[in-house]
Amino acid sequence: MRIPLREVTPEIQTAEVTGWVHEIRDLGGLSFYILRDRTGFLQATIIKKKASEAVLKAAKEVSRESVVKISGIVKESDKAPGGREIIPEYFEIISKAETPLPLDVSEKVLAEVDTRLDNRYLDARRPKVAAIFQIRSAVNHAVTDYLYKEGFINITTSKVVAAATEGGTELFPIAYFEKEAFLNQSPQLYKQMMMAAGFEKVFEIGPIFRAEEHNTTKHLNEATSIDVEVSFADHNDVMNLLENMIVSTYEYVDKTCSDALNTLETDFKVPTGKFPRLPYSEAIDIASLSVDEEIAYGDDLSSAAERAIGEEMGEHYFITDWPTAIKPYYAMPYEDEPEICRAFDMMHPKMELSSGAQRIHQYDLLVEQMEKKGLSPESFEFYLKPFKYGMPPHAGWGVGMDRLVMTMLDLPNIREAVLFPRDRHRVTP
Amino acid sequence: MRIPLREVTPEIQTAEVTGWVHEIRDLGGLSFYILRDRTGFLQATIIKKKASEAVLKAAKEVSRESVVKISGIVKESDKAPGGREIIPEYFEIISKAETPLPLDVSEKVLAEVDTRLDNRYLDARRPKVAAIFQIRSAVNHAVTDYLYKEGFINITTSKVVAAATEGGTELFPIAYFEKEAFLNQSPQLYKQMMMAAGFEKVFEIGPIFRAEEHNTTKHLNEATSIDVEVSFADHNDVMNLLENMIVSTYEYVDKTCSDALNTLETDFKVPTGKFPRLPYSEAIDIASLSVDEEIAYGDDLSSAAERAIGEEMGEHYFITDWPTAIKPYYAMPYEDEPEICRAFDMMHPKMELSSGAQRIHQYDLLVEQMEKKGLSPESFEFYLKPFKYGMPPHAGWGVGMDRLVMTMLDLPNIREAVLFPRDRHRVTP
Repeated sequence: MRIPLREVTPEIQTAEVTGWVHEIRDLGGLSFYILRDRTGFLQATIIKKKASEAVLKAAKEVSRESVVKISGIVKESDKAPGGREIIPEYFEIISKAETPLPLDVSEKVLAEVDTRLDNRYLDARRPKVAAIFQIRSAVNHAVTDYLYKEGFINITTSKVVAAATEGGTELFPIAYFEKEAFLNQSPQLYKQMMMAAGFEKVFEIGPIFRAEEHNTTKHLNEATSIDVEVSFADHNDVMNLLENMIVSTYEYVDKTCSDALNTLETDFKVPTGKFPRLPYSEAIDIASLSVDEEIAYGDDLSSAAERAIGEEMGEHYFITDWPTAIKPYYAMPYEDEPEICRAFDMMHPKMELSSGAQRIHQYDLLVEQMEKKGLSPESFEFYLKPFKYGMPPHAGWGVGMDRLVMTMLDLPNIREAVLFPRDRHRVTP
Repeated sequence: MRIPLREVTPEIQTAEVTGWVHEIRDLGGLSFYILRDRTGFLQATIIKKKASEAVLKAAKEVSRESVVKISGIVKESDKAPGGREIIPEYFEIISKAETPLPLDVSEKVLAEVDTRLDNRYLDARRPKVAAIFQIRSAVNHAVTDYLYKEGFINITTSKVVAAATEGGTELFPIAYFEKEAFLNQSPQLYKQMMMAAGFEKVFEIGPIFRAEEHNTTKHLNEATSIDVEVSFADHNDVMNLLENMIVSTYEYVDKTCSDALNTLETDFKVPTGKFPRLPYSEAIDIASLSVDEEIAYGDDLSSAAERAIGEEMGEHYFITDWPTAIKPYYAMPYEDEPEICRAFDMMHPKMELSSGAQRIHQYDLLVEQMEKKGLSPESFEFYLKPFKYGMPPHAGWGVGMDRLVMTMLDLPNIREAVLFPRDRHRVTP
């Protein structure tokens, strides 16, 4: 069993440790090698007069970012990180790093985002970058824990599909043997089918693919979506579920990731209480007052509008009661006021995190709404059929995992929240 | 809050329930409606003389597999499933099913697998099918729980990639804007890059895509892979990890899925103890004795050979010490006997579940092995570069989630373990 560097303390007296050489400082008679692993740092101190030939040879040869194995005595040391140091009796270079490095891991020189992404294996050694992905893992853990506790069934649906979810053309085509196929833009239709199947509460966390030619700091062409669908539930039920899941995810990160949060020096706060429900019509009013562009009822919200409303709200909130005309065909219109529907967006003050709705479960109404949107029901037959044979009322949402992490940690670019982002210009590494 | 049908007991006196009409039996003065949800069954009993007009009207109109809402008094009843029944005072058809149904959900007539998959939303209402996916969800839960407890970081790597993992040609091409891209066949290279990044222990559960033209009961073109990679570990360390994960997953299913296991009437057993380690050379000897085909040292194991060895072993086991020539270029050869390598397969008696290895972490050796396999190191530059800048020793494996569920539940076809399977001929629904 390897000892994490954080756990190397004088109490254990001697230790064998492995890690990366983060920094080398040579002061003549003394030299310091700061070792790094994902748990922290440990200083190896070589007193040249006292060290063995073999140790001196390895220490001279080693370069920054090499992987080394060192064993020796662990001592207290006021000046070393964490208040302790190791005095090497054995020093082995396991994997020597070439020089110069394509990227400076010790963060004194910050590289361009493209250089960083091209060399993600080095970039992610930087404690601030590693901390993001430790927290992202915790977010994933918190979300799945929460949903399992609430009685959800985890489902896996296919990413190779024969048809679009929303009839758009923004799909990546795949050469699938002699058939036409596409990368799925959302598990929406599949999770609805599982409502027809009686699974009642399902979730999926997986990739979604959108062939949109955007070039922004908050869109990617491949994203991770947290998708949930619940039978015998309406839009209010699933808004409550979403709000509770978000709060419990923040709480879990707060509880389990204090080192990573400290490393990031971010202004992390667990959202409190209930997220306000802001009707779309009021959101439009707020935006028109503060944004220097024409905004009318019935418009989608631009990024500028989202920011203006978010500034006013100052916390996570829902925009509810959207015009039926600008939401997907499967959103349920209100019975008494069918121009607006039971759809919602869940917003972080800086951007949209989630869209959801109570869905239409009546076959005839669904066909009617499709036709109103100019879609052809014939091309959705595989999806429509389940609605003829006992579809329960249901509601659900999808949350963008990447944006959830991005907004939680106040990252300036969604690419900071994704290990290997895919955009208009990037399919590598 | 909806009450699950299983929890409707005489103690609660009255209840409002929702569910699907699984069966209708009319005995003249009495009629029975067996309601179904994912938790079980509940009988609604209508005594025609005593029921209201409205209840009688709905009861007459309703068809099998419709979604209904019923409220009334809950009573004990010896003859009803679960020893209780509900006497409807209110009976609403929420969503009426057309007749005839494309598929018989009450399982008296078993349909062909293609009809079932075409109508998965109905097929998965059958308790035996629903039970499989409840267990699959529990498997997913157990695996992630186990790996989080062991200190693993959950990572998400891109499914859209610019190059093959193993230089094969069995990739699905994607039209990715003006670039050439493919669906990833394995996260192998990415999890190795995260070892270079110092993440030390990572896992990913996600889709993998193989454009192979097989047509068997144990291959699909889109599969779910559980992928793990560990730094400063060798093949023995990760075999131990895998074996413990498998046992703990079976234990979790045993503990939490007794209803589903009973429904399936399967011969479920938690594997005991340590999985035997069988060197490849001995596996070949066993196979040559029992299989009616030429088998020589250096051959891959055919399905027939796998079954013969599995019969001999009678439990999960590892095949170790494979010839270097028939394992991927990244498997670490033994120092003292480089014709064999530190690769292993983990086998269920009926089929392979996992492949893994200690990986080569030395740049020069990796390039040498690539060249021996006829691959061009130039086309793997994005992957090779991390090996120059401090790659630790590491080992890992991938387990097929679909096969894990299939073998656990003794399913005859991998399509039974996947909601929406994708094969040579199927991209729908």
